[in-house]
Amino acid sequence: MNVGTERSISRPASMEALRANTIDRTMLRTLARALGDAPIRLELWDGSRALAAGAAATYRVLIRTRAALAGLLTDPQLQFGEHYTAGDIEVEGGSLADAMTAVYAGVGEPRGLRVLLDSVCSRLSRISPVRARGNVHHHYDIGNDFYRLWLDERMVYTCAYFPTPDATLEQAQLAKLDHVCRKLRLRPGEEVIEAGCGWGALALHMAQKYGVRVRAFNVSRTQIAYAREQAHRFGLSGRVQFIEDDYRSATGTCDAFVSVGMLEHVGLRQYRELGSVIRRLLSANGRGFIHSIGRYRPMPTNAWIRRRIFPDGYTPAPSEMSAIFEPNGLAILDMENLRRHYALTLEHWTARYEQAVPVVRRMFDEKFVRTWRLYLAGSTAAFRTGSMHLYQILFDRSGSDSTPWTRDDIYAPG
Amino acid sequence: MNVGTERSISRPASMEALRANTIDRTMLRTLARALGDAPIRLELWDGSRALAAGAAATYRVLIRTRAALAGLLTDPQLQFGEHYTAGDIEVEGGSLADAMTAVYAGVGEPRGLRVLLDSVCSRLSRISPVRARGNVHHHYDIGNDFYRLWLDERMVYTCAYFPTPDATLEQAQLAKLDHVCRKLRLRPGEEVIEAGCGWGALALHMAQKYGVRVRAFNVSRTQIAYAREQAHRFGLSGRVQFIEDDYRSATGTCDAFVSVGMLEHVGLRQYRELGSVIRRLLSANGRGFIHSIGRYRPMPTNAWIRRRIFPDGYTPAPSEMSAIFEPNGLAILDMENLRRHYALTLEHWTARYEQAVPVVRRMFDEKFVRTWRLYLAGSTAAFRTGSMHLYQILFDRSGSDSTPWTRDDIYAPG
Repeated sequence: MNVGTERSISRPASMEALRANTIDRTMLRTLARALGDAPIRLELWDGSRALAAGAAATYRVLIRTRAALAGLLTDPQLQFGEHYTAGDIEVEGGSLADAMTAVYAGVGEPRGLRVLLDSVCSRLSRISPVRARGNVHHHYDIGNDFYRLWLDERMVYTCAYFPTPDATLEQAQLAKLDHVCRKLRLRPGEEVIEAGCGWGALALHMAQKYGVRVRAFNVSRTQIAYAREQAHRFGLSGRVQFIEDDYRSATGTCDAFVSVGMLEHVGLRQYRELGSVIRRLLSANGRGFIHSIGRYRPMPTNAWIRRRIFPDGYTPAPSEMSAIFEPNGLAILDMENLRRHYALTLEHWTARYEQAVPVVRRMFDEKFVRTWRLYLAGSTAAFRTGSMHLYQILFDRSGSDSTPWTRDDIYAPG
Repeated sequence: MNVGTERSISRPASMEALRANTIDRTMLRTLARALGDAPIRLELWDGSRALAAGAAATYRVLIRTRAALAGLLTDPQLQFGEHYTAGDIEVEGGSLADAMTAVYAGVGEPRGLRVLLDSVCSRLSRISPVRARGNVHHHYDIGNDFYRLWLDERMVYTCAYFPTPDATLEQAQLAKLDHVCRKLRLRPGEEVIEAGCGWGALALHMAQKYGVRVRAFNVSRTQIAYAREQAHRFGLSGRVQFIEDDYRSATGTCDAFVSVGMLEHVGLRQYRELGSVIRRLLSANGRGFIHSIGRYRPMPTNAWIRRRIFPDGYTPAPSEMSAIFEPNGLAILDMENLRRHYALTLEHWTARYEQAVPVVRRMFDEKFVRTWRLYLAGSTAAFRTGSMHLYQILFDRSGSDSTPWTRDDIYAPG
C-alpha cells in the first residue's frame, strides 16, 4: 500500500524552487547517518539524495521544506509528526507502517537530553479528574461516527486477541472479551466494576455471557451515551449501569475489578492511588485485571503522540506498574504480553481506515487524515519492533483464597 | 500432627523452678496483644497464661525461659527461631505450619526499624562468586542422603506444579519440569544454558524428553557429582554437560536460558548483572525463563532464615526483579504466580520429613531436626498467607520474533 502523495496541504511553494545549499546537504547526510541500517533513501525538495548507511533503499522519504529537514535533525520525534501531517514530508515505496518499522528497527530507542526531560515531565504530571476529563474528551469525543468507520462491530478500541493470526478483527475482539472474562473467572451473580469502559463492549459482554452485574465508569459523554443505547438495545440496562464519572468515584465493593485500555491515561503519579481505589473496592476474594499498553523499560511517550493524540498519555514499564500493586497489598497472579496481537490489531484498523479515508477527508480535512494515518502507522511499528508492549495483568489481594489453582481453565474448550 | 515435645535439648533447668514475676507477666500480656486475632494461648514456664486478643485458642505456645520470652518481644523474627530450635519454645495443638499460618494471618507483615535496617542490608550486599560458593555450600552440601529422605525421586528442591491438588509429589515435580519446558518452547537440537541446576533433574529431563543439548551450571560440588552420576546412568552424558562453576562464567550463546530456584541466592545488587549475562548468552530469537520465590512488595528476608538457612538469601518483589530485564532490553512475555503450589509442595516435604525425623536425628542432632522443621513450617505459612509467592517469568529480547503467539500450546494436550 502506498500511503499517497496528496499535495493538497498548504505550505510555502517558494521553498520548492530553492536549490538545496551546502548546509542543507550536510543536514541531509547527518540525518541519513542517524538512520543506521534502515533501508531508506532521503530526498530533498530539489532532488538531492542520501542513503542511510549500508542499506539498499526500499523506502523513499521526501523532505519538502528546509524547516522539515531542520526539524528532523533537532527534534525528530515531534517534528516528523508535525511535518508529515502538514504534508511537508512524504513516504513512498511501501506502507507508512512498514517504513516506520524499518526506521525503528534501524535506529533503536531514542535517548539523550530531550528524552530525559520528557521522562521527568511524565513523572511530575499530576492528572486531576477535571484534567482527565479534558484529555479523554480530546481523543474519544471526536465522534462515534469516525470510530465506527474502522473499528469492529462492537466498537472495541483496544488490543484484540487473535486465536490464530488469520482470525478476523470481529472474531479477535470477541475472543479478547472472553479471554479477559476467563482470566477473571467470572461467576454468575458476581458484581463487577469496570474503570474506563469505552463504548461498553466488555461490560455488555460480561453481563450477557457471564451473568454478572456491572457498574462501568467512563468520563467520555459520547461513549457513555452510545453504551447506554447498546444496553437498552440488548435488554441489559437492568444489569449494566453505565456511569459518566471518574473511576475514583466508585463506592461499595465488587468481586472483580477490570480496566482495559485506561491505564495509558492515568499517569504515573496516580498509580498508587489507582491501586488504593482498587484495594478499597475489591472484596476479600476479589480479582483484579488491568490491560494496558506498556514498555519493556521506562521511557517517555513519543512527543508528537503526547501533543497531538494523547495529552498526558504515558505507557509504563512493568517496574512502574508495580506502584499500583505493591504498596496496596495486591499480588500479581498472571501477566501476559500480547505485543504481537496489538501489531496485528493495528494492521486491521489501518486497512479499514485507509478504505475509509475519502469519508474521513470529507468529515474532517487532509491534515486530520494524515494525523490518524501516522498515529496508526507509528503504533504498528512500535508494537512490531518491541518499543511498545501490551500487558494483561491479573491480581488479587496477596494471600487471597481466590487465587486460581492453574490457568488450565482459561484454555479449556467451551 | 503434633510436632512433638521432646525435652532432650539442654537448657537451664533452674529456670523452670522460678515463678514468673510481674515483669514476666507484663511481657507475656504485651506479646499476646501483638499476636492480634491469632488463636494462640501463650504459657510461661510456671503455668502463667495469656490469650491473644479476642480469640479462642487452638494452639498453645509454651515459653520455657525468660530469655525466650524477652527475645520474642524484642526481635521476634530471629528469636522465635533461635529459641524454638533450642527447645525453649514449644508449639502444641496442631502442626507447627498451621500455628505459624494463624500467627502470620493475625499479625501481618513485620514493619519497623529492624525491617528497615534489614532492607538496607539486602540492598548493599555484594555477593562475589567466592561468597556465592560459600552460601551454596552452607545449604546444599549438607549431604545428598539428607535431601533424599524427603524430596521426590528426582531430587527436585523447588516448587512443584500440581495439575490438581491431589497429584502426588512425584507427579507434580514431573509436571513442573514439563511446564517449564513447554513455556520455553524447546525444540529438538536447541542449545540450553541452565544456571543453578541443583541435582540436575531439569537438565536431564530437557535433554531426554525435548531433545536439546544442555550446559548446566552449579557451584555445589555434591550436587554436580550427583547430577553427573545421573547423566551417566541415563546415558545422557553426551547431551548434558554439568559444569561446577558460577553461571557468570558461561560463554557462547544459547536458544534458551533457564534458571529455577537460583535467583533467591543471587542478591539484589547482582540482578542487573544477571540480566546482562543472560542478554549476552541469548541468541536473537532466544527465550529466557526464571523461576523464583518472591514477594508481593519489597521486604527483607526473615532474620532467622538469613542467619540459619540461607546466608545472603533474598526474595524479590516484581519491581525488584525488573532490574534483571529492563536495563538489558529483555521483555516479560508471561508471568505466573504458583504461590499455592509451593504451599502444597512444602506440605508434602513436611510430611516426608516428619516420617524421616528419627533418621535425621541419628544423622545430625535434635537442634538440626527442629531447625529444619521450623524452616519448612515457616515457609509453608508464608506461602499460604501470601507473605511469599512463586513467580515463573518467561522473557525474550524485546521485539524478538520468537515471542509465542498465544499460550495455547502450553495447555494443549500431549
